[in-house]
Amino acid sequence: MKPSVKHEGVIMTKEIRLNGFAMNCAGHLSPGMWTHPRDRSASYNDIDYWTDIARILERGKFDALFLADVLGVYDVFRGTVDAALTHGAQVPVNDPAIVVPAMAQVTEHLGFTITATLSFEPPYPFARRMSTLDHVTRGRIGWNIVTGYLDSAAKGSGLDKQTAHDRRYDIAHEYMDVVYKLWEGSWADDAVLRDRAYNIFARPDRVRKVRHAGEYYRVDAIHLSEPSPQRTPTLFQAGTSQKGMDFAAKHAEGVFVGGPSTHVIAPRVAELRKRARAFGRNAADLLIFMGINVVVDRTEVAARAKLEEYKRYTNTEGALALLSGWTGIDFSQYDWDEPLRYIKNDAMQSVVEGFTVADPNKVWTLRELATSAGLGAAWPLLVGAPDQVADGLQRWVAETDVDGFNLAYIVSPESFADFVDLVVPELQRRGVYKREYTEGTLREKLYGPGRRRLAPDHPGAQFRYVASPT
Amino acid sequence: MKPSVKHEGVIMTKEIRLNGFAMNCAGHLSPGMWTHPRDRSASYNDIDYWTDIARILERGKFDALFLADVLGVYDVFRGTVDAALTHGAQVPVNDPAIVVPAMAQVTEHLGFTITATLSFEPPYPFARRMSTLDHVTRGRIGWNIVTGYLDSAAKGSGLDKQTAHDRRYDIAHEYMDVVYKLWEGSWADDAVLRDRAYNIFARPDRVRKVRHAGEYYRVDAIHLSEPSPQRTPTLFQAGTSQKGMDFAAKHAEGVFVGGPSTHVIAPRVAELRKRARAFGRNAADLLIFMGINVVVDRTEVAARAKLEEYKRYTNTEGALALLSGWTGIDFSQYDWDEPLRYIKNDAMQSVVEGFTVADPNKVWTLRELATSAGLGAAWPLLVGAPDQVADGLQRWVAETDVDGFNLAYIVSPESFADFVDLVVPELQRRGVYKREYTEGTLREKLYGPGRRRLAPDHPGAQFRYVASPT
Repeated sequence: MKPSVKHEGVIMTKEIRLNGFAMNCAGHLSPGMWTHPRDRSASYNDIDYWTDIARILERGKFDALFLADVLGVYDVFRGTVDAALTHGAQVPVNDPAIVVPAMAQVTEHLGFTITATLSFEPPYPFARRMSTLDHVTRGRIGWNIVTGYLDSAAKGSGLDKQTAHDRRYDIAHEYMDVVYKLWEGSWADDAVLRDRAYNIFARPDRVRKVRHAGEYYRVDAIHLSEPSPQRTPTLFQAGTSQKGMDFAAKHAEGVFVGGPSTHVIAPRVAELRKRARAFGRNAADLLIFMGINVVVDRTEVAARAKLEEYKRYTNTEGALALLSGWTGIDFSQYDWDEPLRYIKNDAMQSVVEGFTVADPNKVWTLRELATSAGLGAAWPLLVGAPDQVADGLQRWVAETDVDGFNLAYIVSPESFADFVDLVVPELQRRGVYKREYTEGTLREKLYGPGRRRLAPDHPGAQFRYVASPT
Repeated sequence: MKPSVKHEGVIMTKEIRLNGFAMNCAGHLSPGMWTHPRDRSASYNDIDYWTDIARILERGKFDALFLADVLGVYDVFRGTVDAALTHGAQVPVNDPAIVVPAMAQVTEHLGFTITATLSFEPPYPFARRMSTLDHVTRGRIGWNIVTGYLDSAAKGSGLDKQTAHDRRYDIAHEYMDVVYKLWEGSWADDAVLRDRAYNIFARPDRVRKVRHAGEYYRVDAIHLSEPSPQRTPTLFQAGTSQKGMDFAAKHAEGVFVGGPSTHVIAPRVAELRKRARAFGRNAADLLIFMGINVVVDRTEVAARAKLEEYKRYTNTEGALALLSGWTGIDFSQYDWDEPLRYIKNDAMQSVVEGFTVADPNKVWTLRELATSAGLGAAWPLLVGAPDQVADGLQRWVAETDVDGFNLAYIVSPESFADFVDLVVPELQRRGVYKREYTEGTLREKLYGPGRRRLAPDHPGAQFRYVASPT
């Protein structure tokens, strides 16, 4: 890693990486904001909404659009999905993969990281779908690996509840082996000739069956797609439990972290890098993105006015529906004006900390928490003029060693457009953000030329096709 | 149905419906033709290849592009996939759904019918994926329902072989009930308000959980997507067994049939319509499409010359790999110059008949069959000037009561472009083909205005959301 140094009063850091963060639904992380007159996220069924977002992000040289997903609904609040439905809090929610090919068609460089829950995707057709996406986008696909966390998703799939957490990760590790074998090991790089003169499409001696007989999966078949530009899509993960962090440290190339303050994020980043080293990987190859919200305008006064205007559209009940789902606490049982410190579990602790860090002396109420969460779900919120936002981003990088940010929107696509028009030029001026894309695949954009495939020290690389001695 | 009448020596028939027929691979049904200098199908990984096809078909007012699929490989010939791989005979093969959103973006009317094998797609995420496709295409999605027929696909999914045929159809009927409940029954038409002023995205009292506890599937969840333009995608099927025909007669709106001659197709069409009536459906709502190949040019002489030129690129071994997969007969065990009549089983009988019908006195050899199969897999081949092809199509409709055709390509996209430029105007001149698209969804294009949703007599309609008495 490049050292962080002070230079002319500005904190110099390594190059900042940026993903846009969205979900195929209205509002995503800012419940109620779909009612804002300038918000277009309620048009998530319309492909033009998505192609517009893609164009904006590519204009801002973002590495990728990161598409979250849940295959379930938020039904902890009052024990029903009613509040989530009423306020469109991540329900209805459409398949993220389907909007990607159209966005890829109107862009040249922007990557697309799709969340897919492996518990509910059989590996054989899933591997083909991702290969197809990698082909049609010319290597711009990432996969955010999720093992599933909502009971409601399990209930959609014939189970009464989620598989136990630890066993879920055992299944996930085996699933990864299966898809690595399909992506990396079934076809040699030179298997496909497309030789019209000699009438040879592919060389059968350079294609082999994946023979996997594990505890949870069995496959005895060749991968159906020929090698795509990246083979294995660029891998992202966001686990925060012990097992989840190990999974990320072993498999992920990008890790997505959320947290309220530098003193929460910094040790987590260090821990992730330490664990990656323990798996024999280059710790710098673990690119860590933190979730962030930005409200920016030409001046601080204008930005603060914009924030106040946004606040009028937040929705308390919708926010509590999301917060209840994330924490497992049914907030409907509490008085909304009760101080937060009386509501406790591990997940809640980190939420509360997110709000208290800004002002440790203030006693937050549930109502206040929900209002703030309505502006981006308890992630750090940077508000100000372009230079103030840039200072804030650089400070996060310097103090936590994250590599970049997943920028959520509050009002879509306005939040993306504001950032691209105002903050990106400032970051470029400071020399901490690219002026041009690197050519090539998403992985090459993140790691540089020549890094089209998984690194040799990545566990997926061991499954690479190696010719048999003849 | 409109009556067929003779008019000025031309056989007048009902309006002819047309689908283009392709697959996300090189060559599809014409093994070897990917080596033809003008064939672009080897570029199936490139999205521009697909958007060009979509534009051509829309120019020709085709109802839809019908995308075949197999989630497996052809490995009956010599007991290995080698011949199929060498000649690119439907392997490698990519996911059909992923190329649709980009094609939808460059067209306004063309429908897209995707083949998906329900045995390997869990119904809950599958239903959401299809709803998402229906949303982003504004209601232009069809689903060709396949229960799976290749053992190699089962082996990709942890099974030693396919589920027994009859049980597979039991599973398929239950699967349909599950997806009908999700598509038709979970959300009321007026559930989603998007009311910014009153801050109501959806009305929870108009959304209900699907509670399905069957023999093979359990679901206890709301559908994740709000109602798409068609809700249930337009349904296609192609079963030919007794159980398969019953499945089609019950569930399908479009049925895809293949057969060599009018005297094979006509009774099958009659039988399908009879069975549809037995299920209480309007027999005319069963739109029956037969597979066909066309080589057309401005004159018959030019068309025949084009056919001869095509023949030089057919591939015998690739064709036998496909034929072996379809018939279950490993043709590598036979002398290629042996007369076909000695090679027998039910599937083979229909293949042989396909070739003998043209010239009943000729003794066909395996080699000759393969050469012809290389030009479109044993489907009827119409060769000639535009008026001759139009005569042939009208004769098929008049003599078999099919509603239209799935037009395969021999050279892609040339076969589509030739047909659109030469045959379509001739059909329009004769008044048997539309000059303009009907507005609306794929279902409305097939059945007319007002038919956006499943017909009331379709079995899926019984699962429609009906308000509870209050």
